[in-house]
Amino acid sequence: MNIVLLSGGSGKRLWPLSNDVRSKQFIKIFKTVDGEYESMVQRVYRQIRSVDTKASVTIATSKTQVSAIYNQLGTSVGICVEPCRRDTFPAIALAAAWLHDVKKVSPKEVVVICPVDPFVEEDYFEAIERLGEIAESGEANLVLMGIEPTYPSEKYGYVIPKDGALVSRVSTFKEKPDLKTAQKYIDQGALWNGGVFAFKLKYLLDKAHELIDFADYWELYSKYDTLTKISFDYAVVEKESNIQVMRFSGQWKDLGTWNTLTEAMEEPNVGNVLLNEKCENVHVINELDVPVLCMGLKDVVVSASPEGILVSDKEQSSYIKPYVDSIDQQIMFAEKSWGSFRVIDIEDESMTIKVTLNAGRSMNYHSHERRHEVWTVISGKGRTIVDGIEQPVKAGDVIELPVGCRHTILADTEIKLIEVQLGHEISVHDKQKHSL
Amino acid sequence: MNIVLLSGGSGKRLWPLSNDVRSKQFIKIFKTVDGEYESMVQRVYRQIRSVDTKASVTIATSKTQVSAIYNQLGTSVGICVEPCRRDTFPAIALAAAWLHDVKKVSPKEVVVICPVDPFVEEDYFEAIERLGEIAESGEANLVLMGIEPTYPSEKYGYVIPKDGALVSRVSTFKEKPDLKTAQKYIDQGALWNGGVFAFKLKYLLDKAHELIDFADYWELYSKYDTLTKISFDYAVVEKESNIQVMRFSGQWKDLGTWNTLTEAMEEPNVGNVLLNEKCENVHVINELDVPVLCMGLKDVVVSASPEGILVSDKEQSSYIKPYVDSIDQQIMFAEKSWGSFRVIDIEDESMTIKVTLNAGRSMNYHSHERRHEVWTVISGKGRTIVDGIEQPVKAGDVIELPVGCRHTILADTEIKLIEVQLGHEISVHDKQKHSL
Repeated sequence: MNIVLLSGGSGKRLWPLSNDVRSKQFIKIFKTVDGEYESMVQRVYRQIRSVDTKASVTIATSKTQVSAIYNQLGTSVGICVEPCRRDTFPAIALAAAWLHDVKKVSPKEVVVICPVDPFVEEDYFEAIERLGEIAESGEANLVLMGIEPTYPSEKYGYVIPKDGALVSRVSTFKEKPDLKTAQKYIDQGALWNGGVFAFKLKYLLDKAHELIDFADYWELYSKYDTLTKISFDYAVVEKESNIQVMRFSGQWKDLGTWNTLTEAMEEPNVGNVLLNEKCENVHVINELDVPVLCMGLKDVVVSASPEGILVSDKEQSSYIKPYVDSIDQQIMFAEKSWGSFRVIDIEDESMTIKVTLNAGRSMNYHSHERRHEVWTVISGKGRTIVDGIEQPVKAGDVIELPVGCRHTILADTEIKLIEVQLGHEISVHDKQKHSL
Repeated sequence: MNIVLLSGGSGKRLWPLSNDVRSKQFIKIFKTVDGEYESMVQRVYRQIRSVDTKASVTIATSKTQVSAIYNQLGTSVGICVEPCRRDTFPAIALAAAWLHDVKKVSPKEVVVICPVDPFVEEDYFEAIERLGEIAESGEANLVLMGIEPTYPSEKYGYVIPKDGALVSRVSTFKEKPDLKTAQKYIDQGALWNGGVFAFKLKYLLDKAHELIDFADYWELYSKYDTLTKISFDYAVVEKESNIQVMRFSGQWKDLGTWNTLTEAMEEPNVGNVLLNEKCENVHVINELDVPVLCMGLKDVVVSASPEGILVSDKEQSSYIKPYVDSIDQQIMFAEKSWGSFRVIDIEDESMTIKVTLNAGRSMNYHSHERRHEVWTVISGKGRTIVDGIEQPVKAGDVIELPVGCRHTILADTEIKLIEVQLGHEISVHDKQKHSL
């Protein structure tokens, strides 16, 4: 079976851990049996692997997430990269074309589309296997997963099944309702639309060709930015008459806000945290090196990262977005294909960052027009190439990189270095790539 | 008139802004009329100067505070340095000897001892002038300031005056009572002991010689570590029968805890802070460069510094001390005679700090046995001396300092630099001073 995980865009609702360059699915907050912390994407990937070791997993995502995915899942995972964001129908069409044209998946094979961020247990992926089998049988063109509602939520779309059987034909779909209407739907036996769709690859390729003019994956990729933004629900699901829905009553949580995310945490604290005994229902996620001390708080979430510090009443945390939008904050931490960086000091005419290069990786060979840089290697071994000349480097070495000089570093072991950038107009855009 | 301000020890009750090396009196949180922020010591010094431009002010304090005092008040302020901590009687005796032997103050002159940290208005210092005049008249050996109590506090000692006059003889002293006893004292007309004492210098010199065997200031200084720790109240005040007390009913606040400190803040926030409209009675002091966002909090204080982050219910904040004692945190920021430093990265075998040297200042000429250092100057101009050789330095210059090399930097303008320390056992104690 082919599983396509839709790894959605960056979001600010879990600021300061998520922002324009870090997405919530990469935050490591779930404690595993061996005491380590894993992210949503790591958890979901591990669960799929444990339920179906043979499943072929593809992650459909944007360019900006590729580094984080490889860093967290390893480089053997399939990634279908969207050149830009175009909502779920173009993303699923591109993934279908990629499976067919790049991965040579037969049009007869079943594909299950699944969001990357539900907080679920393994029974969810067992249900997804069952969903694939139902799609395989060919009784319907599309098979959905319907989540048994636990409360009248205004956040979800509703699926109304024809009957109460485990697998039923779909009678109709309802958009996100108000509270009262949601209760009415639930009384009628409605299910939440969990965003999981199973179909045979041919079905989706046909739909894609019907709605978009393209020959193959490569053409679709090249014209991706011209596609209309439209959701899969709107473009396909709501227009399809031959749909089945399978009920799922296991654990299913949508961890989109601090309120719901903290409910899913095994332990109240991650990181260097101290709570006094008068704290009640307090969760703290501290990514900084210095301690967070909480005293006498109730129903509060505290989150500290290189980007900033949030202290919020849990219920209030769901209204965070406009406040975060109003913050004009330089990106302070980012994962890159070669490792990560963290800004540790900012002055008018300098910026100091800590760079971590993963073993075996290297930066692009590049130069800067408006700044010079000083690297001090603090750990690890590797090689620099500066204006074509390769030199070994180790902890304690200093490399001065004048304006315009072409440079890169190759990490033989993991390398950490302190980079001081000096100049009048320091900008991430001042970077010219060169070939070696 | 001679005013001696007792600048007490470091404390952890205002962590993370105060700790073993930063005292609460140096935290800049009081907004002045020109929009800048001043510390307790700056506020008190400014108030004294505005009430009595001719007052001779001496700060009695420990070695560790000298840099911070010079940085905040300028180098013209008198400082009487205690070589170690020995409670208030030895401190006041040392200050008296310093005034007599170093500053050549006549034994007939009046001295007023005053804590450095009450949060008061100028009428308090007008009352102190009046206190000095009463001491000048010689009716009593000691004149105290009695604060009109505003509530039955368990935190203060009480002075019971003989009558209700503005200036009265003292009947008796009472130690910190319980709540019920405090109310009883107040009903009897008791006043809080505000820690302010006025006397003629000769009186105190005589007392000091009576209790300590010493010839002059220099001998007292050299044997200071052998003196018994004893408070001025216990050694002198409670044994003296000829005492007057003057009532003071103006504003007087003891800003010893986050709860009382935030009450005295003009504005709810200092630094990069965003509160949503659902916050109520929330104070935030953020010394970091990144934003603090608070949502839906009530009666909470948030404080973020390079040392850590506190989030506390205001009332609970008074129980902070044992929690802070349990935190084993490296000092991340400190003021020095030459400027300040901040730790910006810590790894197993390296530490990176940002150093700010004030214009005209220089570090000690020193070397390290177990680490080498790399300095990258990020702003300013000055000179380095490395193994005896002086060189000009400016922004962008890199100075490598191998193990054992003797080095210093002299700031012609303010200089900022990033210092990467590299070695197996990095410690502040690995520092050998040399003469140039």
